[in-house]
This record gives sequence, structure tokens and C-alpha cells, in this order.
Amino acid sequence: MTPTAAILVIGNEILSGATQDANTSYICAHLNRRGIRVMEARTVPDVPAAIIGAVNELRAKFTYVFTTGGIGPTHDDITADCIAEAFGTPIDVRDDARKILQGYYDGRGVELNEARLRMARIPDTATLIDNPVSAAPGFCLGNVFVMAGVPKIMQSMLIHIDTMIEGGTPVIARTVACHLKEGDIAFELGDVQKDFPEVDIGSYPRDGQTPSLFLILRGTDEMQLHSATERVAALVKARGEEPQLL
Amino acid sequence: MTPTAAILVIGNEILSGATQDANTSYICAHLNRRGIRVMEARTVPDVPAAIIGAVNELRAKFTYVFTTGGIGPTHDDITADCIAEAFGTPIDVRDDARKILQGYYDGRGVELNEARLRMARIPDTATLIDNPVSAAPGFCLGNVFVMAGVPKIMQSMLIHIDTMIEGGTPVIARTVACHLKEGDIAFELGDVQKDFPEVDIGSYPRDGQTPSLFLILRGTDEMQLHSATERVAALVKARGEEPQLL
Repeated sequence: MTPTAAILVIGNEILSGATQDANTSYICAHLNRRGIRVMEARTVPDVPAAIIGAVNELRAKFTYVFTTGGIGPTHDDITADCIAEAFGTPIDVRDDARKILQGYYDGRGVELNEARLRMARIPDTATLIDNPVSAAPGFCLGNVFVMAGVPKIMQSMLIHIDTMIEGGTPVIARTVACHLKEGDIAFELGDVQKDFPEVDIGSYPRDGQTPSLFLILRGTDEMQLHSATERVAALVKARGEEPQLL
Repeated sequence: MTPTAAILVIGNEILSGATQDANTSYICAHLNRRGIRVMEARTVPDVPAAIIGAVNELRAKFTYVFTTGGIGPTHDDITADCIAEAFGTPIDVRDDARKILQGYYDGRGVELNEARLRMARIPDTATLIDNPVSAAPGFCLGNVFVMAGVPKIMQSMLIHIDTMIEGGTPVIARTVACHLKEGDIAFELGDVQKDFPEVDIGSYPRDGQTPSLFLILRGTDEMQLHSATERVAALVKARGEEPQLL
């Protein structure tokens, strides 16, 4: 069975349009390389009911859930408490997390004040996730992995998480680029898709760019992928175009 | 009542990490300016059950739903049929949509072939949405607005949609930037938030950048927003820093 995943982005700043989320795309690419299929990405605001509802729905549905955002020191950082509530697990400042923060701030001559101590609030049975960038840990509870929203920190946490998850057969991609319009070969492309149900064939026009059309084939079986790619390249050739294999 | 909205992004290419979604951020910013509050953004793959389930869940929950992607001519363009099924509305090639496509392709000497004709598949009672870029229309059914995934086309459709939706009181934003660390004023910032429950105060660190911390206040009441911003600026000053009002 191919492991599946959902990504849950938590934060008003994304839904207000103030911040462009870059984490989803990064995590999707990362998980795909590990052979984990991302089936949904969802963004919710800093509202407890929305976070708790989404966590419980997604963790029941998919092998893994990855959250980003809401684990800092400010009042709008409510992710840890919401995850604890979703699982019905007690949460408080935990000694192991406090020790990590204490060491980090002591080394910088910065006070571990009440606000910063909030970042040591970790659900009772959760496993800490290393944060080599700014110390404040993420955590894993059940099949839910809780990460920071700052991209550099999130990416560093993902390295540790890699040792905690089981991947599947990696997905390989092949791209056939050309100067055709999507509609020129759409019908025949559908036939190729029917003949290769296990290969995912997508058609992506890039208006005003060269080449103007990318046909992307993705799958786990290299032989099938190869055969399907040959078929798609032949379609392009039959329209008098030289396909570019990327 | 503030109108609410959800965005539903449809497409395997986003979840594979191959394409960075830029539409969500654009639509969020646009709707916020119109005083419509985006409460959720969701990305699902080109899988009928996932699309239909999400549409029915979101349209029941929010004032408006905006979808992007999956209305082109290829086999993986299944959005229109899924929306029709979600509503239990019949769908087929519709004369008004076919006429639009015929005019567009005739003018370019391009054949309106079977694949391209798929783009005239519109649910029976839906209202067409203009596509001044490439003709193939979007549509509105109930409170669901169906748009293309290509950013330039989506943005052009949004202009027409603007005449079809009711906005609310526009959200105004104020930014206080400084060189503090988030944890320096997080506790006091929480107090300001408590005193101004109708202003949404967010704290966004930008590690390694100058200024290093953006405090963003958002709300519909200009007086309250002004007072809350003054309080936040005073917090920064009390830490010996000159706040930058952006």
C-alpha cells in the first residue's frame, strides 16, 4: 500500500493573502520523493474549532498528517493546544522541551520569559522533533507531525521527521514538452491515459511561454512510465512537432 | 454579517509539488479587499469523490466557494462534471458555451474538435463566467464559482465574478515593523489582543531579514484598528526600539 498524507497549514496570514504559502509545495515534493502520496492540502485560520476539526478529519483519513504554523510564542500560536485537544491528550510545559529552550536562550543571554516558555508546551505522550535552527521543538503525536511555519525551520524539522516515517515506492516523473495547444492532442492523450491507468498523465499549458505545453507523466513503474512516455511523444510527432523529453 | 468563502484548488500538479499554487494567495487578497473573509483553502487531486465531497462540504459551510483548475480540454479536466454531480444537476455541451468557443476558434482558423468541445460542458442551470483571455467560460452554480487554473485566465474571470457577489466591510491592515524577537513582546501583545477582540493581531518573524518582526493588525473598524496599532507601537517603544509603521 502506498502511504498517503495530508498537509494542514495553520495561519490567518495565508488566508488574508498577506503571506504566500511556500511550505505546501516543498513538503509535497519532499513526500513524493519518499513515495508518500499527498491526497489533500488544507489551510485553516487560527481558530481552535477549525484546527481541531481538520486534524481529526485528516488523521482518520490518511497515513500521515503534517501541520505547519502556530507553534511560536505569541497569543495566536495555538496549534499545540489544539492538537492536544484533538487527541484528548493533556498538555503542559514539558521538562525536556523546557531544557532545550533554556540551553538555547542561556547561550544567547536572552531571558526564557513566560511567552517563550509557551513553546515548551507539548502534549504528554508526544515525541519531540528537532529544530536545529531556533531550538523550539516540533512534535509528533500519533500520525500527526507538528512543524513550524517559518520555511527554514520547517525544512530542518522535515529532515528529522524523515527518520520517523515509512516511505513507499518513489514516484518518477517524465515530461514531454512541445509547442502544441492543449486541445490539439487532448483526445488522443485521453486514450493513452486509458491504456496506462497506473500512470498519472497531466497536461499543463503555459500560455505565452516556450515550450507552450508540458505533458507530465508520473508513476512508480519505470517500464510502464517509459512505454506511456513513448506513446505521448509519438502523439506529438504525429502532429508534426519534435517532442522535447525533459 | 461578514460574507465568508472557501477556495478549492483542483489538480494533481499542486499535490505532487510540481506546480506552486499562486491562485490561492491572489484570490484571498482580492476577497479580503471586498470584505469577504476566506475561512478555508483546500487542494484536492483530480479524483471525482474528493472533488464532489469537498464541494458539498464547503458550499454548505460558507457564503461562497471559488474553485480553480480542471476545466480544460484534457481527460484530467473533470471539474465541471464533478460540480454538476455535487449539485445533482444535468450537464452536457451547452449551446451558449459552444457558440463562444466556435467564434473564438473560427477566428483563429483552429478546429473546434471533440476535446475542445468538452470545454462547453456546463451544468444546465449554471451562469457562464466570461473568459476574455481564451474564451472557454467558467460558470457559477448556486454559491460555487468555477474558474480556470491558469493564473492569467483565473484573474480575468474574477473581474466578472466581482459583479456577481456581495462584499462586506473591507478589511484594513496596519503593520508595525521592528527589530525585536517575537518572544520579546509576545506576552504583552497577547494583552493587546485581549483588549481588542475584533482586531486580528498577528506576529510574523522574518529570520535573517531587516526588520526582523512584522506585527500585522487587521480589522474593519478604523478607530479600533488605530487604537490597537498605537498600543502595539508603544510596546515596541517600551523595549527601546523605534517602531516602523508601514
